[in-house]
Amino acid sequence: MAKIAALSGFPEWLPAERLVEQHVIDVFREVAELHGFSGIETRAVEPLEQLLRKGEIDKEVYVLRRLHAEEDGDDAREDRSRTLGLHFDLTVPLARYVLEHQNDLAFPLRRFQIQKVWRGERPQDGRFREFYQADLDVIGQDTLPGHIEAEVAVVMAEILDRLPVPAFTIHANTRRLSEGFFRALGLEDQAAVLRSLDKLPKIGEEAVRELLLTEAGATEEQARACLAFAAIRTRDASFAEQVRALGGTGEMVEQGIAELTAVLERVEAAVPGVIMADLSIARGLDYYTGTVFETFVTGHESLGSICSGGRYDALASDNRHTYPGVGLSIGLSRLVSRLLSAGLATASRAVPTCVLVSVGDESLRELSDAAARSLRRRGIACEVAPTAAKFGKQIRYADRRGIPFIWFPGTDGAADEVKDIRTGEQVAADAGSWEPPAEDRAVRVLGAAQE
Amino acid sequence: MAKIAALSGFPEWLPAERLVEQHVIDVFREVAELHGFSGIETRAVEPLEQLLRKGEIDKEVYVLRRLHAEEDGDDAREDRSRTLGLHFDLTVPLARYVLEHQNDLAFPLRRFQIQKVWRGERPQDGRFREFYQADLDVIGQDTLPGHIEAEVAVVMAEILDRLPVPAFTIHANTRRLSEGFFRALGLEDQAAVLRSLDKLPKIGEEAVRELLLTEAGATEEQARACLAFAAIRTRDASFAEQVRALGGTGEMVEQGIAELTAVLERVEAAVPGVIMADLSIARGLDYYTGTVFETFVTGHESLGSICSGGRYDALASDNRHTYPGVGLSIGLSRLVSRLLSAGLATASRAVPTCVLVSVGDESLRELSDAAARSLRRRGIACEVAPTAAKFGKQIRYADRRGIPFIWFPGTDGAADEVKDIRTGEQVAADAGSWEPPAEDRAVRVLGAAQE
Repeated sequence: MAKIAALSGFPEWLPAERLVEQHVIDVFREVAELHGFSGIETRAVEPLEQLLRKGEIDKEVYVLRRLHAEEDGDDAREDRSRTLGLHFDLTVPLARYVLEHQNDLAFPLRRFQIQKVWRGERPQDGRFREFYQADLDVIGQDTLPGHIEAEVAVVMAEILDRLPVPAFTIHANTRRLSEGFFRALGLEDQAAVLRSLDKLPKIGEEAVRELLLTEAGATEEQARACLAFAAIRTRDASFAEQVRALGGTGEMVEQGIAELTAVLERVEAAVPGVIMADLSIARGLDYYTGTVFETFVTGHESLGSICSGGRYDALASDNRHTYPGVGLSIGLSRLVSRLLSAGLATASRAVPTCVLVSVGDESLRELSDAAARSLRRRGIACEVAPTAAKFGKQIRYADRRGIPFIWFPGTDGAADEVKDIRTGEQVAADAGSWEPPAEDRAVRVLGAAQE
Repeated sequence: MAKIAALSGFPEWLPAERLVEQHVIDVFREVAELHGFSGIETRAVEPLEQLLRKGEIDKEVYVLRRLHAEEDGDDAREDRSRTLGLHFDLTVPLARYVLEHQNDLAFPLRRFQIQKVWRGERPQDGRFREFYQADLDVIGQDTLPGHIEAEVAVVMAEILDRLPVPAFTIHANTRRLSEGFFRALGLEDQAAVLRSLDKLPKIGEEAVRELLLTEAGATEEQARACLAFAAIRTRDASFAEQVRALGGTGEMVEQGIAELTAVLERVEAAVPGVIMADLSIARGLDYYTGTVFETFVTGHESLGSICSGGRYDALASDNRHTYPGVGLSIGLSRLVSRLLSAGLATASRAVPTCVLVSVGDESLRELSDAAARSLRRRGIACEVAPTAAKFGKQIRYADRRGIPFIWFPGTDGAADEVKDIRTGEQVAADAGSWEPPAEDRAVRVLGAAQE
């Protein structure tokens, strides 16, 4: 057997850890479906030329080649149109899926997608080369109402709220507000202002002020106003008064205020206390055309934004239609990895099994099988002991896996008995009617506070 | 936008079709967990040299290369040990996972795994290049009791029984029985006999008889006995008498009979009417070391075996331990593809949404949002109409997606009303207490017979 070693950048979980990841996926799906989103999956590969349309991630793409083709000396570089690469996000595939299936889809399309993506990034940066992404998008055909921006944020807020994530805040801004404000100040190169403000977390206020003066053509006063604008963070609609007090006037600013206020109010109504207007959010505002979101976890700011996205006016287009959308995306593996490494979430037991049915003697295995069938018929997960070992050994088998109950089938007319391994309490029980406590029925994933 | 075209061999489903696939995955997981199996996922890639240890599928492997490396002229062939390929099944990764994590796993390990695998096969054979496989294995450390063979078959029978698959039969045989019988007849080259019998479905009885005479060194009488043996198919333990009547005697034959009988009895007890002794099942008997299974669907024999596997004595081994196992695997995408194309399974509606909450006027959207929140709080999936279009248009929106109910929030103190789009019946209702009929709450996947 060749040497077995973990591959850096390709995370893999033990069974108990996978239960946490599965829980996060389940919650995402459950909430998305509750809001009428359809789950889809796209193939893992796209033609390389499709993947390279976003030039900047060139070097991160994994290209596929059939081993056979390689041995034949066939060179994929000769025919790039037929070369396949692994998708590096779920947006490029969604755009292709929407165009390919547009005649069979109903728009607006509400879709969620939870799949692995691959990037050839350096794993030493703490980044993964293979990871789950979980996306939520509403895609319109030619038009998409503005209020969808708030709606997608509500669904994501509900998802995050149900996860064992510590206090999180969804920071929202909208392009119209920033752009309108910079215009109202008399700044002409609004993109340069955005690019400068985008560097705030990295280089700090003083250096950004320099950039605004030298690169964005701002006066001292304009620079001061921009920095004051970017410092605005409010939980409610009061950001509007602060913007106006800084000189933000005009139709575009008021439109931006109305948009952002609607987002705050709708998210607040659904999940109180998680949304915040944060006018420093600039990243992506050149790609996104409406509201933009980033999400931070208190005490885990080093993770960066765990959930980002916003409105874009053209996910895809062809001769007949343009497809605008609103989307949010969670870097699910990165989040799960932190939940696990920081002890923020653990499974209540390592296996799905609620009851280990013991076997007193191999000749009596059918008795144990029958008891297990009875329990399973009522949805109680159980397994039958693999060997008729001494009961102490069978109890250790259960204990090692965190299985809370062990079942002893009665022989010679005696009643069955069930023992709670944690308390040692053992009582007579009938496999056709016994119920474990509700909290023991299924594996639960516990947050740090509940442990 | 570049031309968008489907990629042959890479199936992709529309939302309503994906609901069927998701249902199959959900059932597999639910039943596996009910039997105490832990779900794991392994990374999609393995070192190429690990993948090539099974020489015969050489040409089917997709090799990965970072686009960056390619442009640098870095040639993966120069360092095969670092080259990665996409896994082509879930068994090679399981072997590696077990060895890598052996100190952190509890044995016997009961694991299920549902993941996509990739094979560079010719798609024109009706085969997929990317597809879901769903595996169920019990892995022991150094030892694994024989009765696990029956147990894994029971779990798989329950899974298949809950799926909208038409009448299926699990065909079982065991290596000891075949080998013991051929020995009892005095045949020395048992592997050659197995290879000959393996060709029965393809070349027929007469051609196999020729092979037995010429390749396996059988006499006319031995060949006749072998063919009679391979023709034995019984739903119960009566296969044993037929084997004995053909001259099957000795310890090995009796051991094989006992094994196979135990499998039949346990599966019959759990899921009546699906298991069958079929002594023609020879394929894989040189890899498998105990019971072997193949599963066929009545009327869909062209699919081949939809679920195969058995006992193998060494999934993996290192200096300290050997890991024997029993495993069964479903080619899930292939099965789902047939369920869909043959109309054997359909989703009761195309989207998860149970209720479309209408919007009378954009200024009243918050009323609709509030009603939707009330319904969702009780787990009723709903979405709010994207625009305050005329009610006729909103009803068509719901109808097109198969959403069964449309909700009309009351204004000016009037009660809310809900309309069943199928019957046209409209009644006053309260969003805090209204319940849809149980069969409309969640999407159901219906088999052909239930439609």
